[in-house]
Amino acid sequence: MNMKMNVILCLQFLCFFLLSTLFIKASAINVETYESDRIIDLPGQPSSPSVSHFSGYITVNENHGRALFYWFFEAQSEPSKKPLLLWLNGGPGCSSIGYGGVVEIGPLIVNKNGEGLHFNTHSWNQEANLLFVESPVGVGFSYTNTSSDLTKLEDNFVAEDAYIFLVNWLQRFPQFKSRDFFISGESYGGHYIPQLAELIFDRNKDGSKYPFINLKGFIVGNPETDDYYDYKGLLEYAWSHAVISDQQYDKAKQVCDFKQFDWSNECNKAMNEVFQDYSEIDIYNIYAPSCLLNSTSSIADDSNGNGPESFTKERNDYRLKRMRIFGGYDPCYSNYVEEYFNRKDVQSSFHADTKRDTNVAWKVCNNSILRTYNFSVFSVLPVYTKLIKGGLKIWIYSGDADGRVPVIGTRYCVEALGLPLKSRWRTWYHDNQVGGRIVEYEGLTYVTVRGAGHLVPLNKPSEALSLIHSFLTGQHLPTTHG
Amino acid sequence: MNMKMNVILCLQFLCFFLLSTLFIKASAINVETYESDRIIDLPGQPSSPSVSHFSGYITVNENHGRALFYWFFEAQSEPSKKPLLLWLNGGPGCSSIGYGGVVEIGPLIVNKNGEGLHFNTHSWNQEANLLFVESPVGVGFSYTNTSSDLTKLEDNFVAEDAYIFLVNWLQRFPQFKSRDFFISGESYGGHYIPQLAELIFDRNKDGSKYPFINLKGFIVGNPETDDYYDYKGLLEYAWSHAVISDQQYDKAKQVCDFKQFDWSNECNKAMNEVFQDYSEIDIYNIYAPSCLLNSTSSIADDSNGNGPESFTKERNDYRLKRMRIFGGYDPCYSNYVEEYFNRKDVQSSFHADTKRDTNVAWKVCNNSILRTYNFSVFSVLPVYTKLIKGGLKIWIYSGDADGRVPVIGTRYCVEALGLPLKSRWRTWYHDNQVGGRIVEYEGLTYVTVRGAGHLVPLNKPSEALSLIHSFLTGQHLPTTHG
Repeated sequence: MNMKMNVILCLQFLCFFLLSTLFIKASAINVETYESDRIIDLPGQPSSPSVSHFSGYITVNENHGRALFYWFFEAQSEPSKKPLLLWLNGGPGCSSIGYGGVVEIGPLIVNKNGEGLHFNTHSWNQEANLLFVESPVGVGFSYTNTSSDLTKLEDNFVAEDAYIFLVNWLQRFPQFKSRDFFISGESYGGHYIPQLAELIFDRNKDGSKYPFINLKGFIVGNPETDDYYDYKGLLEYAWSHAVISDQQYDKAKQVCDFKQFDWSNECNKAMNEVFQDYSEIDIYNIYAPSCLLNSTSSIADDSNGNGPESFTKERNDYRLKRMRIFGGYDPCYSNYVEEYFNRKDVQSSFHADTKRDTNVAWKVCNNSILRTYNFSVFSVLPVYTKLIKGGLKIWIYSGDADGRVPVIGTRYCVEALGLPLKSRWRTWYHDNQVGGRIVEYEGLTYVTVRGAGHLVPLNKPSEALSLIHSFLTGQHLPTTHG
Repeated sequence: MNMKMNVILCLQFLCFFLLSTLFIKASAINVETYESDRIIDLPGQPSSPSVSHFSGYITVNENHGRALFYWFFEAQSEPSKKPLLLWLNGGPGCSSIGYGGVVEIGPLIVNKNGEGLHFNTHSWNQEANLLFVESPVGVGFSYTNTSSDLTKLEDNFVAEDAYIFLVNWLQRFPQFKSRDFFISGESYGGHYIPQLAELIFDRNKDGSKYPFINLKGFIVGNPETDDYYDYKGLLEYAWSHAVISDQQYDKAKQVCDFKQFDWSNECNKAMNEVFQDYSEIDIYNIYAPSCLLNSTSSIADDSNGNGPESFTKERNDYRLKRMRIFGGYDPCYSNYVEEYFNRKDVQSSFHADTKRDTNVAWKVCNNSILRTYNFSVFSVLPVYTKLIKGGLKIWIYSGDADGRVPVIGTRYCVEALGLPLKSRWRTWYHDNQVGGRIVEYEGLTYVTVRGAGHLVPLNKPSEALSLIHSFLTGQHLPTTHG
């Protein structure tokens, strides 16, 4: 062995040693970090089956002290082989934990009156490692130490924060860094999701500046996509589903030019009448019973009425305004979820009680974000066109009983993309019944879910699980009976 | 007392004696007749509450030996103060007993698998004395000894027989002769009912030839009314409810002129495709699960396939054809009803086993009538116009989840009448939930029932009872919450 050889070996050893140390240290830090986020047991959590879950804060801006709160579930089986699936609710201002997490697709569903949790046999963590994030800042437990951040919220801001969240979350859970990654969500998530996908798609091209995120595609349900088609669809849906009168329909068609960002006063008046009619039912599920709970819970509302009467009027005005502008949701289970997540013992077990202003109640939808959000993007259809060309796997689905982002408008959106037809519109089956219809274009699949409202997995949990299974695995939804 | 006086008194006595005798005889005959129609107990009938009901045959043509079968329920309380309400199902060829009677509004509902009956707490005989008739001849237990009658069935024939039935039924139950009389029903009853009302209305003017029938009005649900508006509505409903593809919708709109009685080959083809898509769900209730029972029951079908395979194809073709042309209905409960009414003990208790060809199975819908019925009336809107002017009370209602005679087409029909608006389109409530919407015109009230299909009282029994209560009593449906 000559000197040169010795030097090489020595260097190799040194390199190995250094690398090992670094690696071990990195692993140790990461494991330690994410292990400290492990949830041991949430109050009221069923004792079986076991659920491996984590929650905590991911800083997205050190200088401003801005952090997003997440809840993560390992897949129920073989988590190391399953993809990573992010879920985003919309609003803007609504919590992915409060809806997706404990009402729709997570393994722990909040019980009536917020008294504990039960296991969801249709949880999507059967199919993927499941990540919920309260986005943007101001939603749920997410917080900032720089309150002016909250005045700056618009789509790009949200996408940027979500991107940084994701990069940093993958630092904390490095075992998912190269894992197949998909994004899912609903409602105004129809803006967030394609925009976040676009940001990842663009930055993945610049490996020198950005870490690679193994994004494979996204799936959005009842998504706000394009204001023109969405509102045209909303109006036509209200008439064809016998919600509004012929006169209201004719009037709104006449005075509204939905191609404009700002509606005329006449259009605003006409559309407010449409929403007034919708205020009597659940616009998000037009055939479902409405929640008849007294909605004056101090938790559920931040209006400033004094007595019950003014409070109710205020509440109604607010509900109407929110319905008019946003894709939020406020049926009875919102109350239950708010009861649950405002319990101190829950917040403590959830690692959510240390860094934020605990005088502010946790809400399913943050009304002040609803009020101040800056809507600057009229349509995300150009993003679709770009990402379809880019080869992402993209699915859209519509619960066909939703009046807020109705199947009619979404069909217009899909049609407007002008994609070549791959396989024609046909029925898909679930448990020998018609689950809905499916049509495949080159680069995009569109699925309807029969009888489901805005929150498809809430109304049709088994069908929704079948849908996400098909999306993630590539196995076709059955299109023949039996 | 002079001679003259004696003669007068004598004549008076004679008259009194003769009249009394006649009256007593008439009464006795009538009572005897209808008492012999009394049903003591149907097999499987619940022992309580007690139900006072009658069934039997009313001859409508002596020469031809033609008789219609009826089932009559006295009102549950104070029958002498309640109106008389006739119910007619459509098809043509479907039994008012098999649908209205034991599935929808009667007090005795057939159990699963045809094993007996249970009491319907939402029966319309809470509101009225309730009369079901199997009309026209050939339906259910109704029969003729002159088989050529069956080849002559069309709207006028049906109305004439129904009129004669009614006159003769009132002879048998004379206590109802001057009672307030209303007609109700659904589907192709949308033709039968206004036409029967018109016949009564016209003949009531000629007291020398016809007995007076105290007709006050009618109410029809998901009624076939005008082929143009109904089919235009059917197509638009199929698209707006995400049943058919954009391409199918555009094609059918392009090639179909629904103003023509006979469709072009191209239109037939396009519409058959629409019905093909509908064949995968229950067109009569688009959000309900389909019946998955094996539909090869020999009772339920009269097709002539040999093996199971050809049978199924035949059955499917037939189902499609029936869906395409008629407003029949064949979900699982049809099977149960057919099981029940083909029991010999049931037929015997039902007074239905003596006069007809008992080799022919009783069917909920008679397919041969479906096939041979002569559709000669394109629209009954002119009848509406006439009877509205004539002062009848007229209501139309639509279960808004029916794809066969959809709310959209019926709205077009109502609009086409051009009636002055009396009170605007608004919500009506039932048990603090939105029952549907109501709009009142001068002379006509239109009501929708939220989430109900073609057979409104089946899907929404409580709402339907509230509806008929409002129609009969004049008490407004609640249009404010709570």
